[in-house]
Amino acid sequence: MNKKKVSLKDIAEKAQVSTALVSYVLNGKEKESRVGHEIAVKIKQIAKELNYQPNYLAKSLRSGKTQTIGLIIADISNPFFANIARIVEDEAKKNGYTVIIGSSDEKAEKSWDLITVFLNRQVDGFIIVSSENSEEQIQYLIEKNVAFVLLDRHFPTIPTHFVSLNSYKAAFDAGVHLIQGGYKNIGLIAYKSNLFHMQERIRGYRESLAENGIVFHPAWLKEVGFDTIDEEIKIGIDEMLASAFPVDALIFATYRLAVTGLKYINALGLKVPDDLAIVSFGQAEVFDLYYCPITYVLQPMEELGKTAVEILIHQLKEPHAEKRQILMEAQLMARDSSRSKAAIS
Amino acid sequence: MNKKKVSLKDIAEKAQVSTALVSYVLNGKEKESRVGHEIAVKIKQIAKELNYQPNYLAKSLRSGKTQTIGLIIADISNPFFANIARIVEDEAKKNGYTVIIGSSDEKAEKSWDLITVFLNRQVDGFIIVSSENSEEQIQYLIEKNVAFVLLDRHFPTIPTHFVSLNSYKAAFDAGVHLIQGGYKNIGLIAYKSNLFHMQERIRGYRESLAENGIVFHPAWLKEVGFDTIDEEIKIGIDEMLASAFPVDALIFATYRLAVTGLKYINALGLKVPDDLAIVSFGQAEVFDLYYCPITYVLQPMEELGKTAVEILIHQLKEPHAEKRQILMEAQLMARDSSRSKAAIS
Repeated sequence: MNKKKVSLKDIAEKAQVSTALVSYVLNGKEKESRVGHEIAVKIKQIAKELNYQPNYLAKSLRSGKTQTIGLIIADISNPFFANIARIVEDEAKKNGYTVIIGSSDEKAEKSWDLITVFLNRQVDGFIIVSSENSEEQIQYLIEKNVAFVLLDRHFPTIPTHFVSLNSYKAAFDAGVHLIQGGYKNIGLIAYKSNLFHMQERIRGYRESLAENGIVFHPAWLKEVGFDTIDEEIKIGIDEMLASAFPVDALIFATYRLAVTGLKYINALGLKVPDDLAIVSFGQAEVFDLYYCPITYVLQPMEELGKTAVEILIHQLKEPHAEKRQILMEAQLMARDSSRSKAAIS
Repeated sequence: MNKKKVSLKDIAEKAQVSTALVSYVLNGKEKESRVGHEIAVKIKQIAKELNYQPNYLAKSLRSGKTQTIGLIIADISNPFFANIARIVEDEAKKNGYTVIIGSSDEKAEKSWDLITVFLNRQVDGFIIVSSENSEEQIQYLIEKNVAFVLLDRHFPTIPTHFVSLNSYKAAFDAGVHLIQGGYKNIGLIAYKSNLFHMQERIRGYRESLAENGIVFHPAWLKEVGFDTIDEEIKIGIDEMLASAFPVDALIFATYRLAVTGLKYINALGLKVPDDLAIVSFGQAEVFDLYYCPITYVLQPMEELGKTAVEILIHQLKEPHAEKRQILMEAQLMARDSSRSKAAIS
């Protein structure tokens, strides 16, 4: 380990090339400077041997770039976001960016903290999974001309780059799938949230009933609070089962809702799908390993994550590029938990 | 939204107090300066109204502190680490720190990148879940007098602060539990890794057999590579079942190994625990919702995460404090997947 800070000059001397050439190569600009592949490899090798540590702050002052992306996710303990984070990191790395991550726990206040911290750490741009009531933060970023793209959730009233899921269509498809399987009394457990994607899931579900001539009963829809999910899901399922029109199928609007709900359904001794058919958003190993594999809405995670990185990097190069707003389609993965009533009896 | 940057002076004027007082309050030093509670609340309120953004970099240049912790985890898509990250964040926040997270994907090179990026972003200190072959990085941090604590994994030959699990004891207990349940041919699926905690799990497993007079057969131990886990687990399980001493019980050394293994066990149509008893490290909702709840090694996650934050913060205040090296005990949570042979037949 070298005690003295290794400079570009040190590397240049050892490689017997100019300092400018070393700078080009280590800043990933070998193509522009038409450096031969062999010499580029040699320079990188020497930099590694000497344990060269670029001075990002100094570099940043010169170039205005730090090659760092700030990723703010809504909840790191949710496997959907943890997996998305992994995809974003892989894709960013391929493009020479390092990702630093913060988790907002679905709280606007914490998301605000993270944005401030990351801005002060001079990230080049953000990929953000927004929490509820964080519109002000997004406006702030726009005002400050910060490059960013919203992922998985967006605000229809604020013109931003975004890539998210067509939640309306996905929920609609889930409802239609159950109806086609012979289920009539279909419930939905969602979050109590004014986030657009959650409202769209509720709208899609209700529309699937309406279009198929099924009268919706209020007991079939339960919106639970983030912080009271355990108790509220129990109450919701109890009410759905005890209502004048007891549900025979249930849609969960997220992974966390499904896992919590399934634990309670197990505790009640209900058999899936015989007593209750299940379809869920989100995806996780739990759905595969459950005794009755769970039908789920397959979200194109890989595509979502990669596209977010791509949009952000493009934006960094062309700050005034047209807004890219992408809604991706989900795919319903029908499995045993929602097999048709005819197939059960 | 204020376009002009709000200064401490602006807040002081509005609150009709001195700038020094505002500085004290917003830097969390009201106790030291004996500011009244009411005026402190008022100052914070005004700061919020004016959308005051502290200049961390300037602040950092003066105080040398950024109130930021860099957390490097080994794999963000593993729920164990994602949950630990959540705990670290909550605990750090309580202490006035913001956490920025990076995931090394179990790769020393990526962990090196993250350390460099975080150092250049001037984190106050690190909490690190080390990847294999990252000893050099740890030595580097020691040499540079950077505050850090290792979490979940440590290097016995490098004197650092750490908090991790007594992996030897946990694996030993898992083996003894199965032996007491009447199982004789017990396999272990672990990672091929020279990381100490992994070696300790193997040693604990082997010692549980030896102490109980069971002769170990090489086919019972399969060490799989991180990047070839799917194929290697299948081969390992096939070999264990086809060996001259086919296994009747299996220990998985991590969550990811268990989930991958259980998928294959399901595909083979084997019943747990009738055909094969299971005990696993790690913890996850999957273990609760599996048709036969999985016996697992309960790691004190909450304690691990909180203690790591506590050690780091203490270290930031007293850089030359004695090294704290904590091995926590796991607790075996016996459930259906390893119920005694007598109870099965």
